[in-house]
Amino acid sequence: MLESLKKAVYEANMELVHRGLVIYTWGNVSGIDRKRGIVAIKPSGVDYAELSPEKIVLVYLDGKIVEGELRPSSDTPTHLELYRRFPQIGGITHTHSTHAVAFAQAREDIPCYGTTHADYFAGAIPCTRDLTPDEVDGDYEAATGRVIAETFAARGIDPTHTPAVLCLNHGPFAWGKDAAQSVYHAAVLEEVAKMAMLTRALDPKAKTAPEYVQRKHFLRKHGPNAYYGQN
Amino acid sequence: MLESLKKAVYEANMELVHRGLVIYTWGNVSGIDRKRGIVAIKPSGVDYAELSPEKIVLVYLDGKIVEGELRPSSDTPTHLELYRRFPQIGGITHTHSTHAVAFAQAREDIPCYGTTHADYFAGAIPCTRDLTPDEVDGDYEAATGRVIAETFAARGIDPTHTPAVLCLNHGPFAWGKDAAQSVYHAAVLEEVAKMAMLTRALDPKAKTAPEYVQRKHFLRKHGPNAYYGQN
Amino acid sequence: MLESLKKAVYEANMELVHRGLVIYTWGNVSGIDRKRGIVAIKPSGVDYAELSPEKIVLVYLDGKIVEGELRPSSDTPTHLELYRRFPQIGGITHTHSTHAVAFAQAREDIPCYGTTHADYFAGAIPCTRDLTPDEVDGDYEAATGRVIAETFAARGIDPTHTPAVLCLNHGPFAWGKDAAQSVYHAAVLEEVAKMAMLTRALDPKAKTAPEYVQRKHFLRKHGPNAYYGQN
Amino acid sequence: MLESLKKAVYEANMELVHRGLVIYTWGNVSGIDRKRGIVAIKPSGVDYAELSPEKIVLVYLDGKIVEGELRPSSDTPTHLELYRRFPQIGGITHTHSTHAVAFAQAREDIPCYGTTHADYFAGAIPCTRDLTPDEVDGDYEAATGRVIAETFAARGIDPTHTPAVLCLNHGPFAWGKDAAQSVYHAAVLEEVAKMAMLTRALDPKAKTAPEYVQRKHFLRKHGPNAYYGQN
Repeated sequence: MLESLKKAVYEANMELVHRGLVIYTWGNVSGIDRKRGIVAIKPSGVDYAELSPEKIVLVYLDGKIVEGELRPSSDTPTHLELYRRFPQIGGITHTHSTHAVAFAQAREDIPCYGTTHADYFAGAIPCTRDLTPDEVDGDYEAATGRVIAETFAARGIDPTHTPAVLCLNHGPFAWGKDAAQSVYHAAVLEEVAKMAMLTRALDPKAKTAPEYVQRKHFLRKHGPNAYYGQN
Repeated sequence: MLESLKKAVYEANMELVHRGLVIYTWGNVSGIDRKRGIVAIKPSGVDYAELSPEKIVLVYLDGKIVEGELRPSSDTPTHLELYRRFPQIGGITHTHSTHAVAFAQAREDIPCYGTTHADYFAGAIPCTRDLTPDEVDGDYEAATGRVIAETFAARGIDPTHTPAVLCLNHGPFAWGKDAAQSVYHAAVLEEVAKMAMLTRALDPKAKTAPEYVQRKHFLRKHGPNAYYGQN
Repeated sequence: MLESLKKAVYEANMELVHRGLVIYTWGNVSGIDRKRGIVAIKPSGVDYAELSPEKIVLVYLDGKIVEGELRPSSDTPTHLELYRRFPQIGGITHTHSTHAVAFAQAREDIPCYGTTHADYFAGAIPCTRDLTPDEVDGDYEAATGRVIAETFAARGIDPTHTPAVLCLNHGPFAWGKDAAQSVYHAAVLEEVAKMAMLTRALDPKAKTAPEYVQRKHFLRKHGPNAYYGQN
Repeated sequence: MLESLKKAVYEANMELVHRGLVIYTWGNVSGIDRKRGIVAIKPSGVDYAELSPEKIVLVYLDGKIVEGELRPSSDTPTHLELYRRFPQIGGITHTHSTHAVAFAQAREDIPCYGTTHADYFAGAIPCTRDLTPDEVDGDYEAATGRVIAETFAARGIDPTHTPAVLCLNHGPFAWGKDAAQSVYHAAVLEEVAKMAMLTRALDPKAKTAPEYVQRKHFLRKHGPNAYYGQN
């Protein structure tokens, strides 16, 4: 069932390894079949070297398991919450990539310092608020998803224009139209975080790129007047 | 037509990947046939894994397409402007290499802190001024090329002695006698930027190397009395 | 004798190389057979490329050699001291991994800035006190082990909850249920140290993660209510 | 003639590439046959991919070429000066390795912050003084060697105990009993420089390791009471 989705999600998980975004069992990628309301996701704690398309777990959007003998990623409730809140997205990636985690641990947004960032993300990549003790002791992973959605709503950020977030003291989630694109955005996020950190090392008071430069680069790649690429 | 130029430009583009200077579709390399006034350049948004010499696009110096079914790099007008302004150069490379971008985002020249820099670049590698809103909203990529040329003219920098520039909030362009040498200079630029950043981390007020040391190293490799290498 | 232990210790030593945690002959891994009171450890100064299971040295817990023509690692007395003081552990790894060494050289604990750290280590990873001149000039390596145990006792740290330490001006030791897990913890330690350093670069006064977040993540992976993984 | 020396010097040069210490034609390694007073060294400006034992150039200690159609490294006079001044050494390596260059550009010694450094280098790795304009405009490369020897003499440093130096605004030279060991020391130097830089990032006023710790570690590996390794 849903063999092609499971294969795509498997390949997206392996791409995390090839891009150097995870070690050991860290990180996970999911993808969704919107018509059926079914999400395919990495099993919990399974080493990438032992992963295969058959081991990808299928779960309904409400969390019930469709198929698979393995337990899904412990972060599954976060993924499901994001799929419910952001109906436009088709894939989600979670990593502990080094530089993105550093911003999350420093409790900071990643400011848009230049065109590399602006090509993919409209404005700063937001860092969420602290979870409360109740949220952490309760349904922690689902609460993580709710706080991400709350952050985007409170700041008026469109999740299709800024397809990533930093969870405070934790690490990044990125998303896209499918599993593969969510990994792509996670990889760009890590590179953008590294550039931002080095920019700050050179100038602790570095300014963001002018708004009109940010908008120009974003619109070169997005929207009806995009002129990057072959389509 | 121009098969050897297209092959050379293809190989120079692939070298960007091998040197770790680009990820995904970032960056582009071009080369020019000065007699014919024809530039060969990477197609826009094409993954390096799918690139081939046949996919390299040929354009005239005024931007008209000579040959090729694909759209040329969105940065083509910048390349063309540089070929028109700097008649001595034969190849151009654009990357988003991490440390060079950090200097561009911090709005700073890369100072000449030592001999590694001086062996390839006479003096600081300049960072351009802000583009105006009109320049960005108008012919952005051509304006980028004009501002590079303006920077070199205003500061009296010879583009054959300092074969690279940082575009503010954006990233580096490097050039050389042909496509391959422009990649070589882009790789050295990134390494020199990394060294400069680490030097500044050790000493935020680091001084540049003495003028007579800079000149000596540059002249070991350039001009009639060069004595580096076998020629 | 103890062929499977020697093979496991050999493989754990080679994993140090594959994970990029050592260069040349740096670092060493040991494992213990608690029933027999015998420790298997890397021979001193032998290049990893020339290592084989047969070259692993067997020593009794009191330091007498059981078997092997080669001299055991010069750090053997530290390993033995730790096995005697921490009866729950089954494997030990010593490296000079770059970022962990930097904290040891800066004379600092690694604070728990986020969930990556909290998933593996309860609280800060402690840095030991200075060894005295007498300790250094006497049985230096055994004294190193005693000071590690003293640090954990004085601070009330459970070595099974915080399976790593930084030896002041020297570098990290990590441990686990067996040789392989000690390498795993050494690799995570290095990544956590890197994240902590970058966090501090962004915010020199960075705060640790809230206690309730640290506890939650530790208990997701440890103890009777753990729910990470497949067991 | 001297085939085995040329082969050893060739392999040591290639090791520079495998250890990631050089890009393009940067860096060079030499070795000496003390009985014959002949030095084998990399030819100038030759790419490592095209290097072979036959291309290694033989020169007498006074600089006259013994054999070889290629010009020797432009740094040859520095190597020769060091062989004349430091009669105990048998091999020399010059690189532009990133972190060592950063210290040279910041005009600083590398302080001994810990045991990794102390295992190989007694005390700080010295940074030379500025060369004067006359020294630079005269026999620059030989002057570089003279200033290194002057630095060691003025500070009372034994070049066999501290087998490396930073040339101000330039980069490191390392040496050893033969060509291979000089590369080994160059690689350790780069790693020690990286650790020192990160230590300084954590604590700009970081203290060096206590003298008695430095001495202990140095003597574990050097002198009649050394007990590291198998000999």
